[in-house]
Amino acid sequence: MNTPNLETALKHASGLIDQKLGEFLVVPDAPEGRVIEAMKYTLMGGGKRLRAFLCIQTAKLFNVEEAHYARVATAIECAHSYSLVHDDLPAMDDDDMRRGRPSLHKAFDEATAILAGDALLTFAFEIMADKQTHPRKAVRLDLISGFSKALGARGMVGGQMFDLMSPGLALDAGALTRLQKMKTGALIEYSVDAGCIMGQVPDSIRSALTAYAHDIGLAFQIADDLLDVEACQDDIGKTPGKDEASGKVTFVSLLGLNRAKDQARILVEQAIGHLENFGSEADALREAAHYVIIRGH
Amino acid sequence: MNTPNLETALKHASGLIDQKLGEFLVVPDAPEGRVIEAMKYTLMGGGKRLRAFLCIQTAKLFNVEEAHYARVATAIECAHSYSLVHDDLPAMDDDDMRRGRPSLHKAFDEATAILAGDALLTFAFEIMADKQTHPRKAVRLDLISGFSKALGARGMVGGQMFDLMSPGLALDAGALTRLQKMKTGALIEYSVDAGCIMGQVPDSIRSALTAYAHDIGLAFQIADDLLDVEACQDDIGKTPGKDEASGKVTFVSLLGLNRAKDQARILVEQAIGHLENFGSEADALREAAHYVIIRGH
Repeated sequence: MNTPNLETALKHASGLIDQKLGEFLVVPDAPEGRVIEAMKYTLMGGGKRLRAFLCIQTAKLFNVEEAHYARVATAIECAHSYSLVHDDLPAMDDDDMRRGRPSLHKAFDEATAILAGDALLTFAFEIMADKQTHPRKAVRLDLISGFSKALGARGMVGGQMFDLMSPGLALDAGALTRLQKMKTGALIEYSVDAGCIMGQVPDSIRSALTAYAHDIGLAFQIADDLLDVEACQDDIGKTPGKDEASGKVTFVSLLGLNRAKDQARILVEQAIGHLENFGSEADALREAAHYVIIRGH
Repeated sequence: MNTPNLETALKHASGLIDQKLGEFLVVPDAPEGRVIEAMKYTLMGGGKRLRAFLCIQTAKLFNVEEAHYARVATAIECAHSYSLVHDDLPAMDDDDMRRGRPSLHKAFDEATAILAGDALLTFAFEIMADKQTHPRKAVRLDLISGFSKALGARGMVGGQMFDLMSPGLALDAGALTRLQKMKTGALIEYSVDAGCIMGQVPDSIRSALTAYAHDIGLAFQIADDLLDVEACQDDIGKTPGKDEASGKVTFVSLLGLNRAKDQARILVEQAIGHLENFGSEADALREAAHYVIIRGH
């Protein structure tokens, strides 16, 4: 598929985030500098910045200033990065590889990985609270409030807990959908919502855009499950076949390959439908909807 | 020592925090409920709520409403609790006991302890951002901003990283002071500062009160080092003699028992000196300064 808008927009997002991180993450010449080195290692690990992209592209629909959305998108990437670092720990998913490189606790050590995750999460809130993020206090507070809910025990962390409990549970498709909405969907949805919050848009527009994010979040997860079954290690930069080995229920194990693929395609169409009130300015978001099921990461 | 104001004030703080936590932490009948159970386990573990006490007593000096300081003090206790949970993990200090009970990763498991710590930190920010915490947006944003700095890579997490690196370093008293200011001092100082932020007080008063907090924070740490040498397990509810066993430099190993005790006493007097512009309304804070060196936890 030809995706010129998406490619440009993803490069734009990556460039902005790298620039902001270069500004933010200065390693002090002191023993505690190690934790900032670790934060840099994981943040500069070559992720596709999908969440940053979603936040930025949504913000651009409403003419939000770059100075603002660049900071918010960076905070979101910090939070995403923290979740990966803690998720990879031996006591959690125990993954030694991430994006084709040793995961943080392998490149550094477990204690540093725990602390770097903690510092990334904390730093994300520090960025959001700063007045440079948005001149309106109400906007900053809405950003922080939504962020904390997306990340907390009823959002991402709750989803991770649910996921850890899942091998003992006979999940059906409804329960698995609920799990994934929390574990990966909440932050993806928030990334788009953050753009709406900065844009100070009416609720109807906000609902349409978060519905778009909801659908691509779920499509993304189905694609991830498909990738785990179909791909080899080189393709995904981490250990494949882990889901099956861990006895976890996935959309593929529940629906089978073909129905899972159909479901992902339906979600993508549905996601694009939610963008019907936008013109070509939303083309990158439309292309992204297709993109998430081509490549899960 | 007779400390009637302090005892009343500590009980008041504990009661308020327990009440708020009871309100906040409702365990849902769902698999992810386990992480909220774990949060409750650690938050209800019988800590003395020193940080909540400091926040509340400072806020009361300026007639802040209970509805506000109760929430902020609870957020601070959540953050303190998160730091203990992650600090106790096998990859960190590897402590099986905390306050006379199994630490969280022993009572539950390591993965749940990592996630519960993450959820506690996230929840602390959620509480702060909510409009019930303070009607003025500027106050809430100042609270969040100071909080994130106290907890981050140049505050508590930085101090924990520094502490983990310290066995390989020949720390002198200056370096150890810097370490402790970050690791335990930053949150203690913030607890008092949060009271000032809610009170919207002039900078001169805020400086005096944070100087008080700075001094008792350091005295508290020296007392903690003394306790580790002098106490038995029943007294401190965790494994004693760990500092020496780990080869870590402490104020006792650097200064010797007697000079360490003298230093703690000097800091307490100095702390009380910073309260000279307050009358009897600050008596609980004065008594607390004495109290931190009688009992380190």
